[in-house]
Amino acid sequence: MLHVDGERLRADFDALGTIGATSAGGVDRRALGRAHLAARAWFLERAGAAGLKTEIDAAGNHSAVLPAPTEGAPRLLLGSHLDSVVDGGRYDGALGVVAALEALRSVRDAGLALPVALEAIDFTDEEGTLVGLLGSRALAGTLSAEMLASPRGGREALLAGLERGGIAESGLATAERDPRTLAGYLELHIEQGPVLERAGAQIGVVTGIAGSRSFRLCFGGDAAHAGTTPMDGRRDAGLAAARFAVAAHDRTVSAHSGCVATVGSIELEPGLFNVVPGRARVALEFRAPETARLDALEADLLALARAQGLPVEVEAVGDWKPCALDEGVRTAIADAAEALGLRAKELPSWAGHDAESLAAVTPSGMIFVPSRAGVSHAPGEHTAWEDCVNGANVLLGAALRLAQAHR
Amino acid sequence: MLHVDGERLRADFDALGTIGATSAGGVDRRALGRAHLAARAWFLERAGAAGLKTEIDAAGNHSAVLPAPTEGAPRLLLGSHLDSVVDGGRYDGALGVVAALEALRSVRDAGLALPVALEAIDFTDEEGTLVGLLGSRALAGTLSAEMLASPRGGREALLAGLERGGIAESGLATAERDPRTLAGYLELHIEQGPVLERAGAQIGVVTGIAGSRSFRLCFGGDAAHAGTTPMDGRRDAGLAAARFAVAAHDRTVSAHSGCVATVGSIELEPGLFNVVPGRARVALEFRAPETARLDALEADLLALARAQGLPVEVEAVGDWKPCALDEGVRTAIADAAEALGLRAKELPSWAGHDAESLAAVTPSGMIFVPSRAGVSHAPGEHTAWEDCVNGANVLLGAALRLAQAHR
Repeated sequence: MLHVDGERLRADFDALGTIGATSAGGVDRRALGRAHLAARAWFLERAGAAGLKTEIDAAGNHSAVLPAPTEGAPRLLLGSHLDSVVDGGRYDGALGVVAALEALRSVRDAGLALPVALEAIDFTDEEGTLVGLLGSRALAGTLSAEMLASPRGGREALLAGLERGGIAESGLATAERDPRTLAGYLELHIEQGPVLERAGAQIGVVTGIAGSRSFRLCFGGDAAHAGTTPMDGRRDAGLAAARFAVAAHDRTVSAHSGCVATVGSIELEPGLFNVVPGRARVALEFRAPETARLDALEADLLALARAQGLPVEVEAVGDWKPCALDEGVRTAIADAAEALGLRAKELPSWAGHDAESLAAVTPSGMIFVPSRAGVSHAPGEHTAWEDCVNGANVLLGAALRLAQAHR
Repeated sequence: MLHVDGERLRADFDALGTIGATSAGGVDRRALGRAHLAARAWFLERAGAAGLKTEIDAAGNHSAVLPAPTEGAPRLLLGSHLDSVVDGGRYDGALGVVAALEALRSVRDAGLALPVALEAIDFTDEEGTLVGLLGSRALAGTLSAEMLASPRGGREALLAGLERGGIAESGLATAERDPRTLAGYLELHIEQGPVLERAGAQIGVVTGIAGSRSFRLCFGGDAAHAGTTPMDGRRDAGLAAARFAVAAHDRTVSAHSGCVATVGSIELEPGLFNVVPGRARVALEFRAPETARLDALEADLLALARAQGLPVEVEAVGDWKPCALDEGVRTAIADAAEALGLRAKELPSWAGHDAESLAAVTPSGMIFVPSRAGVSHAPGEHTAWEDCVNGANVLLGAALRLAQAHR
């Protein structure tokens, strides 16, 4: 059975971790910032040194390609992203890119002739410093004018980033690939949660990517003197917000097992010690693996907001659809893990990934490896090296299974 | 029985309400700002026009004096303040000052020879734009160096205000009066709460001024990804703060009847939709009419804060002692109301007043009149004019009773 070269993978991973390294032990490689551009240049240099073909598309996605012997064979994409959040960790995204490169080298070194070309791809701006899933959406043809018009990080940051990356906004749409040129997509990624570690599993077979919705709730009460207004004469917007936050948590736990809901912010006005709050603004987000469960959770939580005895304005601010991952790809991953004798577990992904862009146009799947204590998006993000190598071997094994199935 | 001249009182009240008038129907006369200085000048002008002696002390307190026939007779002070909060109402403070002036004019017009001098006094900076109770504390000798060193409104605002008012900081302490020169203090004020209106009472006999304490509580949890962190793996500081706010309210209502507790602010960090809050800062204030009840409330609320399952830092930020008002003065007020055939009700004051400064050095009391719907510190602050005149007559009647008792 073909295995990756763990030492070569380690050397790449460590070298990559020095680019944009932070004193806290993580990396800061915001999309199309200097450190990120340096990491992408390093990636192409490593691919070229390995004798692979390199490509940059109109969305700035960087690729290493191992062609198939057959002219015009479709491409099986293996990838992730080299950008990070502000003050992030060394594993998120980076592991998937170096493992993809290593998988191509391993196939090339073994002299295997596959019926598909293999492409190791580093997608532009996964984390959302600028838009979020910018490169993978462009490739899938799902990057909308609206996303570019009011991007998460603001127009100014987007334009500056594109310019630094040598990417023309007007040309982004031309990065779209014809689905017939694609044989599938595989992504190795750290879990970013504690599920695998808790279960003692070595490999996660991702069933789908949870959807999330977010709402801004504004409770309206009456601002009043905190001394002279008796407890039974108050319309306390802060109390309504607090009761809602508690009820939303408790209801999610009791009636929506396996879903999550978060009140990330509560802002009270006027926000003084001696004034009963007259307004309360609440940031609510919730996630579920399927649309039906998202709908049920939304109905329940918004009913709780409306049951707090004060008028409440409800504004929808985000809606990320759940995404199911391909059954055939999941089977290939599970089979690869089993062949390697690894304990695998099915689980949904609770965070967004480039795989959700790709799933719209080609059979796609994800492999998770355990995150220590579930920590991610922080310098303390860590995955045992053995788990990283296991993940890379499952990526390779699953890729070979999908490639052979294409015959 | 001597009565005030309601029409003269009305003319003064209406004229005063034009000084610093806001488009919303209230006034904005922040301490030692232009409108406040204009109101004080107007007050001295009115006093002078009535043939009363006028005085300004070293703390900027403005007074009109009706001397006693006897040289060296002590002074019975009647007063309140002409400053307002930002965007305040026309009654808070102002009613007490014009009623005091009217009481002096009524005694002078009646040609009564009293064993005490009467002084109508407008105290500097009651509301706390600069320090809070600045003038009355200076008069009582309780203005500390610490209050001046870190004033509520900041040093810069204090120094600028004192300069505009022609007050030397170094001379403030010389405003202190020898208690032997004082025969007592009476203050007419709007209730600023709904108790009298609810009870159908016309006059409030204030038993004392509630004490208040305030604390900043900081709950420490773990900031975490709002998608990948399961509900049972969270240490959500925002949830702990919300549970505390609900518990503090419910416990105060169920176990501390007649007291009030307020969570005026909740600040969550990082305060984003997609991050479980790692820190929560809560502004807690509570009030009770007596120290023993304040102590019990504090013990209960801080125990609730510590029972939320996360570490909590507790920082005391304010401590205003409860103040009992003089029994003899309360009797004089109640008797005056009874003689006028008015329905009176005893109640504590839930807001601070200059009377608490004076109570430390001379027998002091307060008369409340009903506030419509309990609204105050807002343009909609309103007291029926009949209630205002009733209050002024009780002020006059109580003053005469206290004066006669001095014989």
